[in-house]
Amino acid sequence: MEQYGVTVWFTGLSGAGKTTISSEVAKILRSQGYKVEILDGDTIRKSLTKDLGFSRADRDENIRRIGFIANLLTRNGIIVLVAAISPYRQVREEVRQTIGNFVEVYVNASIETCEKRDVKGLYKKFRAGEIKGFTGIDDPYEFPLNPEIECQTERENLEQSVEKIINKIKELQVSNSLSLGCQP
Amino acid sequence: MEQYGVTVWFTGLSGAGKTTISSEVAKILRSQGYKVEILDGDTIRKSLTKDLGFSRADRDENIRRIGFIANLLTRNGIIVLVAAISPYRQVREEVRQTIGNFVEVYVNASIETCEKRDVKGLYKKFRAGEIKGFTGIDDPYEFPLNPEIECQTERENLEQSVEKIINKIKELQVSNSLSLGCQP
Repeated sequence: MEQYGVTVWFTGLSGAGKTTISSEVAKILRSQGYKVEILDGDTIRKSLTKDLGFSRADRDENIRRIGFIANLLTRNGIIVLVAAISPYRQVREEVRQTIGNFVEVYVNASIETCEKRDVKGLYKKFRAGEIKGFTGIDDPYEFPLNPEIECQTERENLEQSVEKIINKIKELQVSNSLSLGCQP
Repeated sequence: MEQYGVTVWFTGLSGAGKTTISSEVAKILRSQGYKVEILDGDTIRKSLTKDLGFSRADRDENIRRIGFIANLLTRNGIIVLVAAISPYRQVREEVRQTIGNFVEVYVNASIETCEKRDVKGLYKKFRAGEIKGFTGIDDPYEFPLNPEIECQTERENLEQSVEKIINKIKELQVSNSLSLGCQP
């Protein structure tokens, strides 16, 4: 059976849990034989988008490039997990339209919780004045209005978040293969 | 049977025949059920690398970004056809090392022939002084020293060039599936 390509786009503040959840989803799906690719904003910024900064234009361009790759992989039947802050609605909407097979996951945690976690030490750097334009503090974050999935990582544990996403992906695999079966 | 991902990298002067040959290869392989993606330099420069010019640094960065995508697609089992002048040996070697499953195709035609063809009118623009840094005239082209395939498009016709490439790709598909079969 042909795998159904889809981009699952994780958006949310730094520290909300995008990388943690997407890594776990990838691990489980791969162990079940699915082809999965992770496009993590932090990693991509070291290679494909290393020329870009954090202005709105640069953040949008970052998302467009990630979207470009996600689209190529998706149309070739890969399950693509994008973990990127992607703070602006408009460009998220733009990549959704381009890709088509698109599931938006809002990884939702309050800025206070994210700062408390501070896995990468970025909030500390911001408070020390080493970083400016921090999403959710002095730079905007436009939360999704109609995400397919919301993971409230302050209230639910990792397994619960992961389960919702895997269920959605498998549901799409099934409905796609059914729809293919209905064609002559 | 799992498809074997490979990047087939077409390098050569503007007008040598890279786009023509790769398009035909893609058409044939797709009609046989293979998953194929074309990354054409001219197209990619309108989107993913639209910020780049034609200095050596920019040309190399263009190739690195294309290589980045080709690598993601290749490791997910896609046959990727890259058609890009890619004038510098060093960065071609770099992407070869990164990708691993890599076939270099030297699309070879003399600069005189390419200028005579001038499908895109670029040589005319150069002669009119509208373009500078033209590969093969006032900008370097470093031909491959050990390409897996050479297409001499002045001496052979499209079918002959296409056949060589398709044979090579299918040979890799077979040898890969044999090697998989040998494993426990």
